[in-house]
Amino acid sequence: MSAEIICVGTELLLGDILNGNAQYLARQLAGLGIPHYYQTVVGDNPTRLKQVIEIASQRAEILIFTGGLGPTPDDLTCETIADFFGAPLVERPDIIEDITRKYVQRGRVMTASNRKQALLPQGAEVLPNPTGTAPGIIWQPRSGLTIFTFPGVPSEMYRMWEDTAVPYLKSQGWGKEIIYSRMLKFWGVTESAIAEKVAAYLNLPNPTVAPYSSRGEVKLRVSAKAASQSQAQDLIAPIEKQIKQIAGLDYYGADDDTLASVVGELLRGAGETLSVAESCTGGGLGQMLTEISGSSDYFWGGVISYDNSVKVGLLGVNSEDLAKHGAVSSIVAEQMAAGVRSRLSTTWGLSITGIAGPTGDTETKPVGLVYIGLAGSNGEVQSFEYHFGAGRGRSLIRHLSACTALDNLRRKLLSQKPAVMPSK
Amino acid sequence: MSAEIICVGTELLLGDILNGNAQYLARQLAGLGIPHYYQTVVGDNPTRLKQVIEIASQRAEILIFTGGLGPTPDDLTCETIADFFGAPLVERPDIIEDITRKYVQRGRVMTASNRKQALLPQGAEVLPNPTGTAPGIIWQPRSGLTIFTFPGVPSEMYRMWEDTAVPYLKSQGWGKEIIYSRMLKFWGVTESAIAEKVAAYLNLPNPTVAPYSSRGEVKLRVSAKAASQSQAQDLIAPIEKQIKQIAGLDYYGADDDTLASVVGELLRGAGETLSVAESCTGGGLGQMLTEISGSSDYFWGGVISYDNSVKVGLLGVNSEDLAKHGAVSSIVAEQMAAGVRSRLSTTWGLSITGIAGPTGDTETKPVGLVYIGLAGSNGEVQSFEYHFGAGRGRSLIRHLSACTALDNLRRKLLSQKPAVMPSK
Repeated sequence: MSAEIICVGTELLLGDILNGNAQYLARQLAGLGIPHYYQTVVGDNPTRLKQVIEIASQRAEILIFTGGLGPTPDDLTCETIADFFGAPLVERPDIIEDITRKYVQRGRVMTASNRKQALLPQGAEVLPNPTGTAPGIIWQPRSGLTIFTFPGVPSEMYRMWEDTAVPYLKSQGWGKEIIYSRMLKFWGVTESAIAEKVAAYLNLPNPTVAPYSSRGEVKLRVSAKAASQSQAQDLIAPIEKQIKQIAGLDYYGADDDTLASVVGELLRGAGETLSVAESCTGGGLGQMLTEISGSSDYFWGGVISYDNSVKVGLLGVNSEDLAKHGAVSSIVAEQMAAGVRSRLSTTWGLSITGIAGPTGDTETKPVGLVYIGLAGSNGEVQSFEYHFGAGRGRSLIRHLSACTALDNLRRKLLSQKPAVMPSK
Repeated sequence: MSAEIICVGTELLLGDILNGNAQYLARQLAGLGIPHYYQTVVGDNPTRLKQVIEIASQRAEILIFTGGLGPTPDDLTCETIADFFGAPLVERPDIIEDITRKYVQRGRVMTASNRKQALLPQGAEVLPNPTGTAPGIIWQPRSGLTIFTFPGVPSEMYRMWEDTAVPYLKSQGWGKEIIYSRMLKFWGVTESAIAEKVAAYLNLPNPTVAPYSSRGEVKLRVSAKAASQSQAQDLIAPIEKQIKQIAGLDYYGADDDTLASVVGELLRGAGETLSVAESCTGGGLGQMLTEISGSSDYFWGGVISYDNSVKVGLLGVNSEDLAKHGAVSSIVAEQMAAGVRSRLSTTWGLSITGIAGPTGDTETKPVGLVYIGLAGSNGEVQSFEYHFGAGRGRSLIRHLSACTALDNLRRKLLSQKPAVMPSK
């Protein structure tokens, strides 16, 4: 028993819009525990749509259509479905009435083309659309097959799904078993390295563990199928604990946690404050930190020292060192971190200087070379050198630089916590 | 003759990610004039993937796969395709070498699981991945059928498509009748206002004009179908010119232009420089400006004055004004802009102070209230007040603030140009 999503619309085939409806429905099906193995996108073309219905109706018991319910001539979904199953279309006076009423409310007059939206396959139930004019249907064209149709407008579709489709599916016995997931997040480690460390978990039946990676971040999704969220959590908890132990400091958080939010909580917990000095990231590190509402409790601000004159004038970087070692060097990174920390009177100063490219590199300093500086309250100043690789491009190098700066501070803050390092 | 897009990944079926790859490929195929009638999403499951290949290979001549090329056991796309067509997998030493080299560059060691990525179907050509480790393939498993595989990571896929797949498809005769589009971009105006102004153009047959909007930006896509790009451009040019005249200063650029790049070119052309002072955006304005390679020619840096102490200490904001009017006020915005301009010795100083929420609002200062300050070389200081609305959320309010700051500077710079205002 499974469901299949069929999105109808030439605008999807032209790439004019992102298929957010498929993502929404996919999440909803997972939440209800309804298996779902295929999604298909097809244009506003009756012949091809019928082909898709034929294939899908052979391998799924619930077909969910979005799109093609509007009043214009290219909106063909409902009549094509009816035609495929050999059912006549019947004009529904209750729908005519509903559309007329909505038009009056908006100070408009119903047009002839809207009458088309009142034609439903004989035997289908109306799936009401409270916010728009195009109704959907819930229909069993034959035993063991249920069809839902929704308009393509996301806000209308969400409301119809929640108000009518979900209660209907629950009345049919769905939603008794749910899928609940935790996304575990890692930084400073590759996907393949994590996958090898947790290889024993990647073949578990329930919960399942699957690795992902994007833009330097590695994730493991732990998903459990159970009768309730708390039972799913009970299945996930021991696996999550073991994976965290295996990953050590490479694990940084779960679900909505970000490196910035985790660093923020550590600073808040310690009653410490942070300032930043940014060169190649140009403000990106500050932006990440201030994405968190309430970050003003521990983040005081910083200096975007894009030009060398700002490094000297506002951060007190030594101009001889700048001339001798260049702006992208460990000594300048350290002076930037120490400078912003002392000028803003914060516990920590964190700095980034590097070559984001595609230009600005030299023979000894390739694109992707980045130094991160960290100055702490005991006068200690450290720096870290990274080679992110020229091939990764300006945007990703800047993103990796900002995240890696946060990750260095995170590891430093954790190493100071008595719970992690009892000897300190 | 048509192409079909097949996206492989359980994360798509679970709704964990949006299918941006399908949209990208759909647009690209449209641009090359390659017909494309179906998109399918299927999980990391060999049996189901084979079923999809069977169906797609009967109705299309070009199959484009994304996802499932990674190093982990659930990455099965390449071996499943090979298995379906009965081809053995062969380890390619050139790929092993390439992966090893990339790992060395990043200071890491290749793991055993990466070897899997070097296994390609016998007879397949490598589709090189310059930015990641997973290569794709270009393969004719039988006459009249061409297969392309790409990793699911969007940035890697885009690069591989542009560098290798497009030249290959053109060498096969595609791209002769092309669809060419220009995306015209507007700021400071609503989608419906633009759509009403250009209503006469929205029903043209060729070129077509279609409105879009997202995150405060309004766009009009002007698309022409023609035998060549230059013929398409000839169709588009007069329409584009008329639309620009209608829109006036609300039009800011086209295609890859951003507000930051347009402001940058204006500054560069005038030989002027810019510094920024950011409160609620926390570095986001500096980040936008420095997304442009070469921005160091005109952007010197700035101060992230998140805490009031930084506004006073580093920008010279008057602490009495701060106490009397609050940090979110026109007078503080103006002092921030003037302060950063004088301390960094730039032609212009641009500042942002506002309430991004969801907390921090007061009875007189709601979430979404933002002041933008602009200080110029003649000692003139201005400020602008905006109400972005609490309902739009922290992230969007910050984005709108940074873009609107750039837009104010853009309008100011344009108003100074003799070509636009001949009286000056």
